Amino acid sequence: MDIKSKIRHIKNFPKPGIDFLDITPLLLDKDTFKYIINKLSEVLKEIDFDIIACSEARGFIFGAPVAYALNKGFVPIRKKDKLPGDKISVKYDLEYGFDILEMHSDAIKPGQKVVIVDDILATGGTIAANVKLIEKLGGEVVKILFLIELGFLNGREKLQGYDICSLIKE
Amino acid sequence: MDIKSKIRHIKNFPKPGIDFLDITPLLLDKDTFKYIINKLSEVLKEIDFDIIACSEARGFIFGAPVAYALNKGFVPIRKKDKLPGDKISVKYDLEYGFDILEMHSDAIKPGQKVVIVDDILATGGTIAANVKLIEKLGGEVVKILFLIELGFLNGREKLQGYDICSLIKE
Repeated sequence: MDIKSKIRHIKNFPKPGIDFLDITPLLLDKDTFKYIINKLSEVLKEIDFDIIACSEARGFIFGAPVAYALNKGFVPIRKKDKLPGDKISVKYDLEYGFDILEMHSDAIKPGQKVVIVDDILATGGTIAANVKLIEKLGGEVVKILFLIELGFLNGREKLQGYDICSLIKE
Repeated sequence: MDIKSKIRHIKNFPKPGIDFLDITPLLLDKDTFKYIINKLSEVLKEIDFDIIACSEARGFIFGAPVAYALNKGFVPIRKKDKLPGDKISVKYDLEYGFDILEMHSDAIKPGQKVVIVDDILATGGTIAANVKLIEKLGGEVVKILFLIELGFLNGREKLQGYDICSLIKE
């Protein structure tokens, strides 16, 4: 199936000069959505791991079905003040300013093998923050899986030493 | 499986006096997560519908796997300015102030039968906003499905005339 042609390009979103990749058309079509979740799951089928971690909100749309399909647990990584329990947090730089991501302190046990799933690898800042949270709790990131990789943004540079896979390259 | 006993109660979150139901322990345990998605899917198995709609972010964790399990499409309903394409929006009241939810204008076609999935039915305000968005586009809400219903908050009052189902009542 040609997933790439179904991605919608929205010019100048969220600000002038950016060509935003809109993945929502991939979700609306039931067969495309099923195909993508199956493909992401296939990549992970041969890997020994315990749990899938995803940051909100688009990551959840792909990571949760993959966790379900492979009978794994699911760890939500959320923006500041969204998680109710004891938590750890990490601050990371944005183009202008910074953002904070949080994870429950009991979400991952030391030694657990964790796979990160997200929709798009762009500059890699958010995913590097995910990795930091997981490793703070003693988890081992055994794979980072993306639907789409924007190669020209060099996100892999922030994730050196990790096993990265993407279904589609742009 | 006793799901209820696995829900974590966090006192005074997000503010004093509130007993917050934390569903994240249900996600961490792979068998509990699988059981819940299967149970939600079973409710919908006999229903004729086209697509599942969910509002961010926790709704995505349940709605997306159910859409995958039942081979349906998925419509994300998002907070203001998150969706990149042409969209419709609805403003709804919170306890103090208001919030805005948005949906892509092409997300639902007139006459499509839509199921809403969310984790918790509380006061019903968010779900009533979801319904408005779907109906603005000519969709028909044929079922609203929750994991947990907080009966004492009377959320059903805001959703009269709709077919509501919840797996657990608190």
